Amino acid sequence: MKYQPGTTGVVVQQIQRADQEIIDGLAQCGVATVHEAQGRKGLLAGYIRPIYPNARIAGSALTILAPPCDNWMIHVAIEQLHIGDVLVLGTTASSNAGYFGDLLATSAAAHGCRGLIIDAGVRDVFNLSKMKFPVWSKAVHAQGTIKETLGSVNIPVVCADMLIYPGDVIVADDDGVVVVRIHEAETVLEAARVREDNEDSKRIRFEAGELGLDIYGMRERLAEKGLKYV
Amino acid sequence: MKYQPGTTGVVVQQIQRADQEIIDGLAQCGVATVHEAQGRKGLLAGYIRPIYPNARIAGSALTILAPPCDNWMIHVAIEQLHIGDVLVLGTTASSNAGYFGDLLATSAAAHGCRGLIIDAGVRDVFNLSKMKFPVWSKAVHAQGTIKETLGSVNIPVVCADMLIYPGDVIVADDDGVVVVRIHEAETVLEAARVREDNEDSKRIRFEAGELGLDIYGMRERLAEKGLKYV
Amino acid sequence: MKYQPGTTGVVVQQIQRADQEIIDGLAQCGVATVHEAQGRKGLLAGYIRPIYPNARIAGSALTILAPPCDNWMIHVAIEQLHIGDVLVLGTTASSNAGYFGDLLATSAAAHGCRGLIIDAGVRDVFNLSKMKFPVWSKAVHAQGTIKETLGSVNIPVVCADMLIYPGDVIVADDDGVVVVRIHEAETVLEAARVREDNEDSKRIRFEAGELGLDIYGMRERLAEKGLKYV
Amino acid sequence: MKYQPGTTGVVVQQIQRADQEIIDGLAQCGVATVHEAQGRKGLLAGYIRPIYPNARIAGSALTILAPPCDNWMIHVAIEQLHIGDVLVLGTTASSNAGYFGDLLATSAAAHGCRGLIIDAGVRDVFNLSKMKFPVWSKAVHAQGTIKETLGSVNIPVVCADMLIYPGDVIVADDDGVVVVRIHEAETVLEAARVREDNEDSKRIRFEAGELGLDIYGMRERLAEKGLKYV
Amino acid sequence: MKYQPGTTGVVVQQIQRADQEIIDGLAQCGVATVHEAQGRKGLLAGYIRPIYPNARIAGSALTILAPPCDNWMIHVAIEQLHIGDVLVLGTTASSNAGYFGDLLATSAAAHGCRGLIIDAGVRDVFNLSKMKFPVWSKAVHAQGTIKETLGSVNIPVVCADMLIYPGDVIVADDDGVVVVRIHEAETVLEAARVREDNEDSKRIRFEAGELGLDIYGMRERLAEKGLKYV
Amino acid sequence: MKYQPGTTGVVVQQIQRADQEIIDGLAQCGVATVHEAQGRKGLLAGYIRPIYPNARIAGSALTILAPPCDNWMIHVAIEQLHIGDVLVLGTTASSNAGYFGDLLATSAAAHGCRGLIIDAGVRDVFNLSKMKFPVWSKAVHAQGTIKETLGSVNIPVVCADMLIYPGDVIVADDDGVVVVRIHEAETVLEAARVREDNEDSKRIRFEAGELGLDIYGMRERLAEKGLKYV
Repeated sequence: MKYQPGTTGVVVQQIQRADQEIIDGLAQCGVATVHEAQGRKGLLAGYIRPIYPNARIAGSALTILAPPCDNWMIHVAIEQLHIGDVLVLGTTASSNAGYFGDLLATSAAAHGCRGLIIDAGVRDVFNLSKMKFPVWSKAVHAQGTIKETLGSVNIPVVCADMLIYPGDVIVADDDGVVVVRIHEAETVLEAARVREDNEDSKRIRFEAGELGLDIYGMRERLAEKGLKYV
Repeated sequence: MKYQPGTTGVVVQQIQRADQEIIDGLAQCGVATVHEAQGRKGLLAGYIRPIYPNARIAGSALTILAPPCDNWMIHVAIEQLHIGDVLVLGTTASSNAGYFGDLLATSAAAHGCRGLIIDAGVRDVFNLSKMKFPVWSKAVHAQGTIKETLGSVNIPVVCADMLIYPGDVIVADDDGVVVVRIHEAETVLEAARVREDNEDSKRIRFEAGELGLDIYGMRERLAEKGLKYV
Repeated sequence: MKYQPGTTGVVVQQIQRADQEIIDGLAQCGVATVHEAQGRKGLLAGYIRPIYPNARIAGSALTILAPPCDNWMIHVAIEQLHIGDVLVLGTTASSNAGYFGDLLATSAAAHGCRGLIIDAGVRDVFNLSKMKFPVWSKAVHAQGTIKETLGSVNIPVVCADMLIYPGDVIVADDDGVVVVRIHEAETVLEAARVREDNEDSKRIRFEAGELGLDIYGMRERLAEKGLKYV
Repeated sequence: MKYQPGTTGVVVQQIQRADQEIIDGLAQCGVATVHEAQGRKGLLAGYIRPIYPNARIAGSALTILAPPCDNWMIHVAIEQLHIGDVLVLGTTASSNAGYFGDLLATSAAAHGCRGLIIDAGVRDVFNLSKMKFPVWSKAVHAQGTIKETLGSVNIPVVCADMLIYPGDVIVADDDGVVVVRIHEAETVLEAARVREDNEDSKRIRFEAGELGLDIYGMRERLAEKGLKYV
Repeated sequence: MKYQPGTTGVVVQQIQRADQEIIDGLAQCGVATVHEAQGRKGLLAGYIRPIYPNARIAGSALTILAPPCDNWMIHVAIEQLHIGDVLVLGTTASSNAGYFGDLLATSAAAHGCRGLIIDAGVRDVFNLSKMKFPVWSKAVHAQGTIKETLGSVNIPVVCADMLIYPGDVIVADDDGVVVVRIHEAETVLEAARVREDNEDSKRIRFEAGELGLDIYGMRERLAEKGLKYV
Repeated sequence: MKYQPGTTGVVVQQIQRADQEIIDGLAQCGVATVHEAQGRKGLLAGYIRPIYPNARIAGSALTILAPPCDNWMIHVAIEQLHIGDVLVLGTTASSNAGYFGDLLATSAAAHGCRGLIIDAGVRDVFNLSKMKFPVWSKAVHAQGTIKETLGSVNIPVVCADMLIYPGDVIVADDDGVVVVRIHEAETVLEAARVREDNEDSKRIRFEAGELGLDIYGMRERLAEKGLKYV
C-alpha cells in the first residue's frame, strides 16, 4: 500500500484487478453468501442501501476519496475506469449531499462502470433507476456539490466503516455491500460455491418439511444447554 | 402468564390461538383500521418496516426471545409452528444482525408460517421478496448470526416497544404492525368492520366533493375554538 | 407577510398563485434541476421521502400549521384547495403520527389536490399508492391523531427546515422536495430549461465517451491545484 | 397480572413492594453489577440517560401509562406514591415532549419519590439538578404537554423496550436503568454481593499488575481457538 | 421582512432590538416558562443542546445564514454585533462541521456577544466552557470549515425548525432555546412573571404535600372521563 | 502493513511508537489544532464522545479488533501495553454493548494505559470518571459482553470511520479524537505549534476588539464575491 488512506492530490493509474470470471462468479453468489464464505468479514455498514430493488453486481473497486460536498474527483476517476469497475467513494468528512446524478452515470456507464458505492448522497434517482445504473448510497438528496478541493483516486479509502483497496472485489445486492480482497477472491468464490450447493440441498429438505433441528443435529446441544420443553 | 418476559431456556408447546376466520377478517381490515377499532392501541414502533411493498397478513403470534446476534431459537420455533402462525422475534439486547434469510423462510413456509415480525435485521431480501415471504424488520443487513445461547419460544416478548403474548393476533401491512389480544379479537373485528362500512360510505361522499367539515359537522366547534377566516 | 409563522387560529382564504404553465414546466424539470437553476436554494431536508417511487409533481403550496398528533386543520385546508394545489404541512412540535390517510386523500383529490408534503407521518400508504396520490413524508405510521387544537391555514410554515409561503411553487420527485418563490418562478423555469438543454447536449457527449475533464475543461485547474498522476 | 399493558382508565392502588433493605442493597451494587448478577437481563434501552451525572438510586416502580404529549396521569400517580418509590412512565405512542418539571418534582419529592424513569422528555433540568431530583429520560425538551386523555397507573408498562410491573425494583445510575422482579430481588442481591466481593479481590490483583489472562486462566482457551502471537 | 429567508450576499446593518430590561427579564424566567407564557410556541427543535450545563442567557438575535462547512459569514456578523446580542446561525444545507471555536468566541465576546445558537457544529468546547461563552449547537465536532461562499447577515433564517428574525429575543438555558418576537416581548414577559408568581405559590403548596389533583381541581374531570380506582 | 484490517486470530507484539516528547506535545495542542495542522485529516467520526468533560490525552495506539458483544481481546491487548499507550478498539460488526468497565480500566492503568477510544459501548462510567480513566466511546451501556470469538491485537483497524495503525499517535479531548501517522507526527507537531503561536497573537488582537475581517484581510475578497451592506 504505497499511499496512505487520507492522502489527497494523487491519482494512481495502474491498479491490479481480480480475474473477471471470479468477479462474475461472486456476483452470482450474492452478498450474504460471500460474506459467510469469507468468514463473516468485509461487510459495509448497513446504512448503505440500494436506490432501487433487485440490482446485483460485482466489480473491481475504483476508489475515490472526496471532500465533503465536493464531487470533483468523480470526474477524475471516470477517466481511470476499466470495463467492469465499480466506483467506490469515501469522504474526508461526513456528507449527505448529492454527489452523483444521471449525467455522471451516463459518463461512467460509457466507460464500462457497473455501479457506484457511495458513503454520501446521490440524486436523479428516477433516471438512474430507468437507466439501470445501480447505486448503493447513504442518502438520496438533491443538494448540489462543488468542485474546489482535491481528493484522490485509487488509494485505500474507508467507505461505510470498511477499508477498501483499489482493485478489491465489490459485491452488492439488496442485502448491502461486501468487499473481497483480490488475493482471497478465488478461495472465497470456491467456498461460496460450496456453500451454495450446500444451501441448495438444504433447501430441498426444508421444502419437504424437515426441520433445521434435525438437519443440523441441534437437539442434543440444545438439551445440554438446558432447553426445556413445557 | 406463566412465564415472565425475559425468561430464557423455555419452549412452551401449547398456546391458545384465535379463530382463523377472525384472524382473516382482521387481515382484510388492515393495520390502521384495526388500530383505530381497538381504541388506538397495540401499534408496534414505526421503525419496523416491510422489506417489500404491498404485503398484508394476519396470523397468530408464535413468539421468540433471542439473544443479540444469535438466531438459534428460530430453528426451535419453527418446529412449534401451526398453519397460519406469524413468527414474532424480540431480542434480549438490541441487534441489527441478519437473523433470518431464505433457507429459514423456506422452512417456515413449509410449516405454514405467514410471515415474520422481527425487532432486528434480516437478509436474502431479494429471495424473500421473490418467494413472497413477507417480513417486517428493523433493518436489512447481511451480517451473520451465531447459535450459542438459549432464548425462549412462546413466552411474552417485547417487540418494537409492544408486549406480545403467544397467540396474540398480529396484523401487518405497508403501514406497520398492530397486535390484538386473543380475547379482544372478535370485538375488534366487529368494530373494524363497522369502521370500514362507515369509511366506505364516507368515501363516496368525499369523492362527490363533500367536505369533512360538513360530513363530520366540524364548523361549529372550530368557531367555538376561535378559528377566524380572513 | 401579514401573518407570522406560528400564528394559530387563522385561515387565509385568498392567496396568490403562480401561473399554471410555469408550475407545469417546473414539474417537468424535476427537483435537482430546479434546485440548481435557482442557485442551490429551496431544498427541503432530506428526511422527507416519497411513499412510493416515480411520482413527480408541482403545484401551489396550500400551507397548514398543525399541532402535534392533531390533524384537524387538514379538513379546514381542503375547503381552501384550488385545482393544482399541493398541501404542505408543518407542525408546532415534532410528531411522527399518521395525520393523513386514504379518506383525506379522496377528499383532497376531489378538490384538485396534486399531493401532500408533510413534516410528520402518514398511513394507508397501500391505498394512497393505488390511488396514485403522491405523498412526501417524514414517516409512515398508523398512529391515529386527534382533533382538539387549532392551527392555521395559508400562513408561512416551516416544513423540513424550509420556510414555505402560501402560493410558493412546490416541486417534488424521487430526489425530494424543492420550493420556488412565486416571483422567482418564471426566471427559475427559464434557467432550468437552459440547464436541461445544456444537460441534453452534454449527455450525448458523455454517451459518446467524452470525459467531464474535457467537456468542462477541468484539467488545467486540477493541475494548478497540484493533482499528481502516478 | 390483572390488567393488560395498554389498558387505560385504571388506577391500581394496592401494589406489592420489595423489602426496603433489599432495594437499598441493590442501589449500592449499581446497574452493571445487578444486570450481571441476574443473568444479563432487565436492562432498559441505552437511549434512556440521566439528566445529570453521579446519581444512583433504587426504588419500587410506581408505573404510569401516558398518552403522547399528555402528562395528566403523573398527577394521578403522585397520590399513589409510597416513600421510596420511583416513578416509571411509558407512553401509548412515542413522544419527546417535556412531561415533567420542577413543580411535579417538588410534589413527588414531598411524597417520598426517589426519582423518575421516563420514556419521553423532561424540562426544568437546571432546577431538577439543583434539587437533586434524579431523572433518566429519552430527551430534554421544554415542549409543554396537555391534560386531556386518560392513561393508567400501576399496570404493567413497556418503558424503553422493557416490561415493568408495578412494584418491580428499579436500579438506576450513570450506566442506565435495570429492573429486578420482586420475587427475584433477594436472590439477585445476594448474587450481586458475591460478584462485588469477587470484583474487589480482582481489583487488588489488577492494581498489582496481574493480567486478566492469568487471573481468569484464559491463555489455554485462546491457544485452542488458534490465537497466534507474532 | 425586506429580505427573504435564503437570500445570500446581503448584510443588513440596521435592525430593531427589544428593550434590554425586557430581554433581561425573559432571561430570568427561563425557556420553559417563556415557552408556556407565549402559548407554547417559539421552541427550537430539541436536538439543539448546550455545550456545558447551567448557562442561561437572553439577547437580541443577530442572524447568520451560512453555507455548509463554511464559516466566513461569522466574521462578517461579528462586526454587526451590539452589546447584548446573541449570534443565531442557520445553514443553507445541513452540516455538523465545527464552524466556531475559541478565537471567534474571543472576538464575539469582545464585541458584547452573549452566546451562540448554531444549527451545526462547534469546537474548542473545553476553552469555550472555561471562557464561559455559552453555545447551543447540533453537534460538537473538530472538523474545520472554509471561507469560500457568501451567505447573509441579519435576514430571517430557519434555525432548528424555527424561523428567526433579526432582533427577535432569544432565550436559552439547559432546557433548550425559545424565540420571542420583538413586538410580543413585553406581553410575554408580563405573562411569564405572572406564571412564575403562580408557580412560586404552587411550589409552597406542593412542598407541603398538597396534591396537584386538589390544587388544580382535577378529580371531577378525571371521574367524568371515567378513571377508575381499583 | 503486514496484516490486513479484518484479520482475526493475530497478536502483533512488536510495534513502532512515536517519540514520547512529540506525543506529549501533540496532547498540549489538542484535537482541533492538530487536525488543522495536518491539513484537516485524521478526525474520527463525531459520534465518538468523551464519557466525562475536560479530559485531554495523547498516546500510541494499541489497536484491538473485536467481534460484536465480545470483549475477550481487551484482556489480550492489556498484556501488550507499554506506558503511554492508548487502547483503540474497532469491531467486526456494529455493537453498543458495554465492552469495558472499571476492572479492565484498573488493569489497563496498572500497565500504563492513558485511555480508551472505542467504537462501541462502555459501562461503570461513574467509577471510570472517579478513577480519571478517560474514555471516548459511541455509547454508554451496561449490557454485558462474552468471551467466545477471537479478534486481533495490533493490526490496522477501522474505528469511527478512520483507519488506525498500531503505533499511530492518538490525540483526544472534548472536541473528539484525531489520529496522526507516526512518520508525520514530528512535522504535525511543528505545524501545530506554529498554529498555536499564531492563534495566541490573534487572540490578543481579538480581545482588543480587532475584527477578523481586518486581521485576515477579508474585506476585499468579500466585496469581489459581491457582498452588499444595506
